[in-house]
Amino acid sequence: MKHARVHYQGKTLNVTVDENENIILPDGMKVSGDQVQWLPPVEGGTLFALGLNYADHAAELEFKAPEEPLVFIKAPNSLTGHRQVSVRPDNIEYMHYESELVVVIGKTAHKVPAEEAMDYVAGYTVCNDYAIRDYLENYYRPNLRVKSRDTLTPIGPWMVDRDDVADPHNLALSTWVNGELRQRGTTADLIFNVPFLIAYLSEFMTLQPGDMIATGTPKGLSDVKPGDEVVVEVEGVARLVNRIVSQAEYEESLG
Amino acid sequence: MKHARVHYQGKTLNVTVDENENIILPDGMKVSGDQVQWLPPVEGGTLFALGLNYADHAAELEFKAPEEPLVFIKAPNSLTGHRQVSVRPDNIEYMHYESELVVVIGKTAHKVPAEEAMDYVAGYTVCNDYAIRDYLENYYRPNLRVKSRDTLTPIGPWMVDRDDVADPHNLALSTWVNGELRQRGTTADLIFNVPFLIAYLSEFMTLQPGDMIATGTPKGLSDVKPGDEVVVEVEGVARLVNRIVSQAEYEESLG
Repeated sequence: MKHARVHYQGKTLNVTVDENENIILPDGMKVSGDQVQWLPPVEGGTLFALGLNYADHAAELEFKAPEEPLVFIKAPNSLTGHRQVSVRPDNIEYMHYESELVVVIGKTAHKVPAEEAMDYVAGYTVCNDYAIRDYLENYYRPNLRVKSRDTLTPIGPWMVDRDDVADPHNLALSTWVNGELRQRGTTADLIFNVPFLIAYLSEFMTLQPGDMIATGTPKGLSDVKPGDEVVVEVEGVARLVNRIVSQAEYEESLG
Repeated sequence: MKHARVHYQGKTLNVTVDENENIILPDGMKVSGDQVQWLPPVEGGTLFALGLNYADHAAELEFKAPEEPLVFIKAPNSLTGHRQVSVRPDNIEYMHYESELVVVIGKTAHKVPAEEAMDYVAGYTVCNDYAIRDYLENYYRPNLRVKSRDTLTPIGPWMVDRDDVADPHNLALSTWVNGELRQRGTTADLIFNVPFLIAYLSEFMTLQPGDMIATGTPKGLSDVKPGDEVVVEVEGVARLVNRIVSQAEYEESLG
């Protein structure tokens, strides 16, 4: 089953989504996806994100593949929903998309061995972990200006239940910019897989229901500009649409 | 006024604290501080933390003072309250305390100029931003194993209202280990002060009520061991007591 959160007629609702991508409201009524504002599908948890978790992407950035997971935290203000906008700051050289499988934690996980880790997964969603490459050089990396700016993490449209995904380590990931395929990979190439990551993190951090792990992105990065439509998809999980806007357009939309 | 959150008789309560450190329950009853379990005083926000925001501390770590704020995010699982324990992991060389003034945001802040920034402050609290120095070397810094382990951020005991602190940039900070003064500094030596930090962050991240900024620590770090009692104090704000335990003792306490 697919679970989403939407704004509809002035209310924030927890809804499900059917196979035709219609939304089933709590009262059983159906509305189409373009009648709602999509919100991030999971609320209140911490979003952990992996850097360089695909060897081909590490090579693309001229890094050696890491020997342990490289994990950072995305600030909640960076999250936005399906069909919302992401801001390209003025005066930067390079903003890139990152199509990622996101694991949603379903129950409190403290020192969970890898063999049991899948029991702690509620489901999966998709994010586009945008980065502003210009600000990478800073002692604390990735600097918040690279990864935690407002709107830099579209996520959703929904969470699909764990048992609806036969094998999370055999899913195609894709990114299209204005309809052109720019990034293509598979979760089969993850360096640190889902159970490993849950075991690694829960060894020193207690994970809570609603916490999320964005598992990294494969190679194929390129710059995006205001006006671009960016679609990221993880096969069998979700397809997430987003548009890049300038700072001026964004500030204007805030009113 | 001092605002705290406590567990008392099976309930989580928002309380105030009088000048003798008695707790005023919502029904007006007074109980002493040792009859409650102290929780982090502010709930639900993101804790941003500054690295190297005192020049003397940067020099101590053999770093040049930074030219822009070095900010990272502390995971919520790391937070714990006054008189709770923090875990020293087995098989590490060095765990140090960091006495810090924490600014609590009181209203939504988006692109706030420094001259107006103090209007967005609800109040102040104190944290001990422990670090496990062993894990510093990692491409993503500070690695979550350094700063975001469970229990590594005691915070509180309370938040004091902004207007009860005459000048946040003229407060003594101190740390005692087993009664011995180990760290002494003043917020007069902050490299990036409170209004600057709010302006800096809110330029690219919308800050929400309950978000917190731990402003960094002065020099005077040393290793702490299981059994040590560590007290951090920011003059006129709060004094926070905490004890270091081993992993085994901690796991046992979880049952």
